[in-house]
Amino acid sequence: MANGTPSASLVIGVLGGMGPRATVDFYSKLIAATPAECEQDHLRVHIDSNPQIPDRSEALAGRGESPGTVLAAMAAGLERAGADFLVMPCNTAHAFEPEIRAAVNVPFVSMIEEACASCDHLFPNSPRFGLLATRGCIEAGLYQKAFARLGRTPVVLTPADQERLMALLYRVKLGDLSSATRNAMRTFGEMLIDAGADAVIAACTEVPLVLSDGDLTRPVLDATTHLARRCVRYALRFEPLPAASISRT
Amino acid sequence: MANGTPSASLVIGVLGGMGPRATVDFYSKLIAATPAECEQDHLRVHIDSNPQIPDRSEALAGRGESPGTVLAAMAAGLERAGADFLVMPCNTAHAFEPEIRAAVNVPFVSMIEEACASCDHLFPNSPRFGLLATRGCIEAGLYQKAFARLGRTPVVLTPADQERLMALLYRVKLGDLSSATRNAMRTFGEMLIDAGADAVIAACTEVPLVLSDGDLTRPVLDATTHLARRCVRYALRFEPLPAASISRT
Repeated sequence: MANGTPSASLVIGVLGGMGPRATVDFYSKLIAATPAECEQDHLRVHIDSNPQIPDRSEALAGRGESPGTVLAAMAAGLERAGADFLVMPCNTAHAFEPEIRAAVNVPFVSMIEEACASCDHLFPNSPRFGLLATRGCIEAGLYQKAFARLGRTPVVLTPADQERLMALLYRVKLGDLSSATRNAMRTFGEMLIDAGADAVIAACTEVPLVLSDGDLTRPVLDATTHLARRCVRYALRFEPLPAASISRT
Repeated sequence: MANGTPSASLVIGVLGGMGPRATVDFYSKLIAATPAECEQDHLRVHIDSNPQIPDRSEALAGRGESPGTVLAAMAAGLERAGADFLVMPCNTAHAFEPEIRAAVNVPFVSMIEEACASCDHLFPNSPRFGLLATRGCIEAGLYQKAFARLGRTPVVLTPADQERLMALLYRVKLGDLSSATRNAMRTFGEMLIDAGADAVIAACTEVPLVLSDGDLTRPVLDATTHLARRCVRYALRFEPLPAASISRT
């Protein structure tokens, strides 16, 4: 462990700031998921919250600087600070996962893989999952590829509705958590259900800031909550880190 | 700036985890206090959230390991990670401020000093400030010494009530944000007002999780909010870091 703190639990490194409120949401959910009878039972977490990372969707559309170099440097910094494994509460940024993995020797736990594994576990008989995600996440096919491996089908918005969702996500990023924004997010969720989704994945970390399970006529699976819960289990060594999380062999 | 991110703003290092929800509260207030028109306008923050730091009040009572060594190591780690100045959203831990300062070359912005400066600024005609704080914070005289320099008088609970407040604070640390807890915190605040306080300081970072300005018959000053607001001003270079924050010369 870093800094000589004796502990049986693993230290979590968080690549954060995308956006900052989503990082707060992830860390809040990590705390809530941790079994603790006193403060000292909670997990040690190093968070590099860097909102100055270039926009992921813009980069994936070829319109801006790639965030890969900055993300790789942040990952290396978190490893130096003492993190035993890394996570990144931003779905879209997982398009740059190879650059992050190449920069570190510690495992990287994929939010996409964990969310899809949770879908598989919780909804074994639901073949179609709706994606409330950024344009970049959809275009990079992050969830679609993971679902294909599980024999599931993704449901996405039409390009025009996807652009409208994108504008809404940028409003949430700036702290607009109003009822108008919540209603608009609910409408996008129902569009996916109307298009055949059996459940909807909050597959952008801004989504659960304004949409919860119970808000739609079908279940909502929050990728942030599932990542947080899995991180607690890994950090407390309730189960081993997934083999696929190991960056270098 | 760390990791090559070009930025005019300063990077904030946060000694956190005391408790973890208080760290979330501080970072949420920092985000809310930041003027931002896009995600990239937000501040970069390195957070070392280490709930395994030994209990501050117990150490100050001579009953447990000192947290000084761990806090000093965390501070040095945050400096290495690229923090331009440090803050610590835990009032009681400021009893170990000299050890932290001795470990780093970057400024350390004191929560106690910032809260007292805000009291002085906001309530120029209020001579008596009630302290909702931990036993350790009271016994170390952290606020009392700062108020003495400003010619103000602290109001504290009786030792028996202070012990009851301490038990309540440990419940908040574990996530009990119930209405019973909120009512109990309000009762302690009113006790200070009955004892002559013109305003009450939420001088433990667990307090604002269950008590807000407007909840008492006199104003509540939240030390966490004021620290967050001041950090934003320093990080954006709206004003220079306080001379007293410089650790080594």
